[in-house]
Amino acid sequence: MKRLAILGSTGSIGEQTLDVVASHPDRFEVVSLAAGRRVERLIEQARAFRPRIVSVGDPENVDLIRDALATSELAGRVEVVSGEAGLEAVAVEPADLVVAGLVGAIGLQPVLAAIGKGRTLGLANKEVMVMAGALVRREAEARGVEIIPIDSEHSAIFQCLSGSRASEVARLILTCSGGPFRTWSKQDIETASVEDALAHPNWSMGDKISIDSATLMNKGLEVIEARWLFDVEAERIDVVVHPQSIVHSLVEYCDRSVLAQLGLPDMRVPIAVALAHPERVELDVPRLDLVELARLDFEAPDRARFPCLDLAYRALSGSEAAPAVLNAANEVAVDAFLARQIAFPEIAALNASVLESHLSDHAGQRVDALDAVLAADAWARGAASEWLAKRDGDGGS
Amino acid sequence: MKRLAILGSTGSIGEQTLDVVASHPDRFEVVSLAAGRRVERLIEQARAFRPRIVSVGDPENVDLIRDALATSELAGRVEVVSGEAGLEAVAVEPADLVVAGLVGAIGLQPVLAAIGKGRTLGLANKEVMVMAGALVRREAEARGVEIIPIDSEHSAIFQCLSGSRASEVARLILTCSGGPFRTWSKQDIETASVEDALAHPNWSMGDKISIDSATLMNKGLEVIEARWLFDVEAERIDVVVHPQSIVHSLVEYCDRSVLAQLGLPDMRVPIAVALAHPERVELDVPRLDLVELARLDFEAPDRARFPCLDLAYRALSGSEAAPAVLNAANEVAVDAFLARQIAFPEIAALNASVLESHLSDHAGQRVDALDAVLAADAWARGAASEWLAKRDGDGGS
Repeated sequence: MKRLAILGSTGSIGEQTLDVVASHPDRFEVVSLAAGRRVERLIEQARAFRPRIVSVGDPENVDLIRDALATSELAGRVEVVSGEAGLEAVAVEPADLVVAGLVGAIGLQPVLAAIGKGRTLGLANKEVMVMAGALVRREAEARGVEIIPIDSEHSAIFQCLSGSRASEVARLILTCSGGPFRTWSKQDIETASVEDALAHPNWSMGDKISIDSATLMNKGLEVIEARWLFDVEAERIDVVVHPQSIVHSLVEYCDRSVLAQLGLPDMRVPIAVALAHPERVELDVPRLDLVELARLDFEAPDRARFPCLDLAYRALSGSEAAPAVLNAANEVAVDAFLARQIAFPEIAALNASVLESHLSDHAGQRVDALDAVLAADAWARGAASEWLAKRDGDGGS
Repeated sequence: MKRLAILGSTGSIGEQTLDVVASHPDRFEVVSLAAGRRVERLIEQARAFRPRIVSVGDPENVDLIRDALATSELAGRVEVVSGEAGLEAVAVEPADLVVAGLVGAIGLQPVLAAIGKGRTLGLANKEVMVMAGALVRREAEARGVEIIPIDSEHSAIFQCLSGSRASEVARLILTCSGGPFRTWSKQDIETASVEDALAHPNWSMGDKISIDSATLMNKGLEVIEARWLFDVEAERIDVVVHPQSIVHSLVEYCDRSVLAQLGLPDMRVPIAVALAHPERVELDVPRLDLVELARLDFEAPDRARFPCLDLAYRALSGSEAAPAVLNAANEVAVDAFLARQIAFPEIAALNASVLESHLSDHAGQRVDALDAVLAADAWARGAASEWLAKRDGDGGS
């Protein structure tokens, strides 16, 4: 029986994780759950999965949850906590795997706490590796902690790497759908609307990640993740556009053999891989039919139309804090685009400006603690806001 | 230092194996070599790789080789043997890996001898598993012998299976180029010439295997190999046509994750995989460029135009000797086609006739020893010759 701690249980990754758990009650048990605002759903999950501890975002909701569980057979058997301390309590509850399914910087501290306790991680919270990859990797190595990615591309690479030595890996090849503007001209992209950018061809996702897919910033962030998850330098991480999103990523070995992981787009697969590792569990999801699919296409990403991809490589070669800076700037930029304050190409322009400003003072800087990551994040948000203010002051475009 | 015994050292697999060895003199050493008729080449190999023992086909060549080596610094240090006993001596020379690179039934006895000594096998000699898969598998299991396939498709599956349990495998998917007649009509195939059939689109191979690729019998034989190499029932082995021969095969797991192995067609890759397993070695062969490749296509094999594929499934479900019968009948049929005695579709007709004749008397029969395999092979060759004689007697077409 594998004991699971789940951070972000009412989010998309959390829900699908519980879906996999529910289909294998003989293999997995849930020891702790942390959610944010979806209190009713958290109560339902607690009733269904009987964790020892649950955490909710707002302390004011603790009594509500306690009361709700008091009327059930769980009365008095579930500890209810809240806030950042609650997240950490859920993360360090004795477990065999911590599923990090939070979104954003809020997941950093609980992940580091879990690593501090030597827990194996199933990592869906990509900001953890994007913002603090160098630090998290060092901490995980120091404690011998295994980090199993839950992201279709990184799970693909993880599966293709199974059992092999880092020295045998020649190249990681991340696939990329190309996003909704893959076939658009530079001119059309310049005037793309929010609705155009949200129309992702293959995956149904939240607004932020959909915009990141349209700019290819999402792939840039995944390059950063891959660099730290697999300890492979950026020069050996390639991106290839594959519009069908069937080949989720590939690994080229030193003997030129290339392993790839394929499947219909379904996050339950990488989740199940992480949950069951090193075994596999049956999953009732549609199977890939290559004949029905008929063809798979590949093309080079256009780095001129999608400059955000190169910004990620620039950040990785710049400083250990630069990825956090780029990530924060991008969050501000995407918010501004979604609020129709800036045009689509200005996302890249803002990101580039804030990143270069950071690197002009901090090239080569190392990150030794979470504080430095959070400081870089805060600085970048400030710089991004200034960029927006200055743009509006200039009359904008 | 991994010690290698090489059966069939002057053949295509043997030469390419020595190529890989030569590029990694720090990792591999050759302890024994067996060749057939290419005496001069065998002498060169012995001088270059300094095995302890070499074997040649014809006993009359033993002195010639001894004399040739006597003039070198190897004088008196290399044992020279011959014939079937020589093959066996090479196979059982103390080694960490026996590369079985012979072609045909002649490789069966030395492989069983190596298994008897508990040696790990690198198996390119496909007739071993085609003719005697059930027997070889049982012997290998009884002695805990690992068999590493050297065949692009089976090496692909081997790599995709790395570290996983048999119970986690849902399906093996063998890819198939489709051969030269993939896009030909049934009518055109009926009058195809020997030259048409020899024109394989992707791999440059010998005549026999080129014809087998044209009939899809080669894929059928590979289904049989896969069934015994990986202990997966025929019902869970699929064939998909993939004209570019870049995806060498795939494994679908119980969680619907599919792993694939890709690469430019080059036998040195599967050879290096087998030699270095469980590690990998650097190989100076062209790397796969997905962008340059641009697309990969997949389609269902046409079982009506290419009936030999289904004959392999029929043989697997028929008796343990049936694959040996089908293989022998097919060898006779292909020889007759190459000699322009029969038309292309008659290869399948002859195979089907001999197979059904065998199964009418021996359905479900188990094979407990090599003798039974060889008897089935001999019977099938006789039955195939009779079919040819009867056809000629009938006036043929």
